[in-house]
Amino acid sequence: MKFHTKYLWVHTKNIHDYINITRDVEEAMLESGIKEGMILVSAMHITAGIYVNDAESGLIHDIEQWLEQVAPYNINYKHHQTGETNGDAHLKSLVIGHEIIVPVTNGRLDFGTWQQIYYAEFDGQRDKRILIKVMGE
Amino acid sequence: MKFHTKYLWVHTKNIHDYINITRDVEEAMLESGIKEGMILVSAMHITAGIYVNDAESGLIHDIEQWLEQVAPYNINYKHHQTGETNGDAHLKSLVIGHEIIVPVTNGRLDFGTWQQIYYAEFDGQRDKRILIKVMGE
Amino acid sequence: MKFHTKYLWVHTKNIHDYINITRDVEEAMLESGIKEGMILVSAMHITAGIYVNDAESGLIHDIEQWLEQVAPYNINYKHHQTGETNGDAHLKSLVIGHEIIVPVTNGRLDFGTWQQIYYAEFDGQRDKRILIKVMGE
Repeated sequence: MKFHTKYLWVHTKNIHDYINITRDVEEAMLESGIKEGMILVSAMHITAGIYVNDAESGLIHDIEQWLEQVAPYNINYKHHQTGETNGDAHLKSLVIGHEIIVPVTNGRLDFGTWQQIYYAEFDGQRDKRILIKVMGE
Repeated sequence: MKFHTKYLWVHTKNIHDYINITRDVEEAMLESGIKEGMILVSAMHITAGIYVNDAESGLIHDIEQWLEQVAPYNINYKHHQTGETNGDAHLKSLVIGHEIIVPVTNGRLDFGTWQQIYYAEFDGQRDKRILIKVMGE
Repeated sequence: MKFHTKYLWVHTKNIHDYINITRDVEEAMLESGIKEGMILVSAMHITAGIYVNDAESGLIHDIEQWLEQVAPYNINYKHHQTGETNGDAHLKSLVIGHEIIVPVTNGRLDFGTWQQIYYAEFDGQRDKRILIKVMGE
């Protein structure tokens, strides 16, 4: 059993951002040398998410608008009594989820045609980390 | 460490559908021969989901109605400028999630009494694939 | 490859509750003796969830209020024709998700500074179980 752990740093220009990290995950898999197994991809922060969906700019725009409706920015969150203003970013993270598992079969990411891995930033303009942990043989 | 990967094809009559695939996952586990480990069950499409919940028809009806409120069909999604009309199916997939992990202990799915595995189709009437990857010993 | 499976019982005083189980998960990891691997933490019920976020009481209050908006209590769910009244608890579980994977690296939970593991109860005042399954070397 082989394990290979890698940390990806991101620092977005905008407060919200959506970054395709599929190639980074693939690269980690190649470095590990595993042919069968899985990869945990997990945001190490509580105001960001990881999801799998389409690399289509219109859809990413729709996701952004939709998340703002489902988990809106609101100055009145109780969390803000700590001095923060990012309550909505926590809720958006809970909708999207903070982690995914990628299957590896025959030395490749075992994905369907349109599946791409995205890091969703909801409280950016600062250093954030993503964990990529490859496990297999 | 054993790995056993299986692909399940589905083709639903309706655009939306909810299919109980618990037995298929159990079957894949039995084929693999593992007694300890876990099973990744993952939709290979970006307009479908996998979730664990109750096999009760009333509840499934409630889930369908509720998802339509949370992530409604809307002709005006930007994604539709690509010629698609399934923007809502992508959002529904993000709410439900596209994958789950099933624990295996003592040669059985280590589930509570009411836990059942469902494939949720949000853009059906075409061939779709589900990956079942068993990993363990 | 080592496997260590543990069941945590909870019985909350209130119908809704949020319990920090990070130490229980850490304890299970220490018992297992693994230094590299992952831990599946999964609610064994369909009216509860597991999520990773901040251990801040204001935020937990916000999550509770927000979930009530996204997946509200409603006496008219079809599921209630079975005699239940907990339809909303099933939907809340689907929003939050019922399981997470925790990475283990160098003998510790490989988490960011603020990541904490929570059990979210949406239909309490009865015995419930959480599965903690440690897998690794």
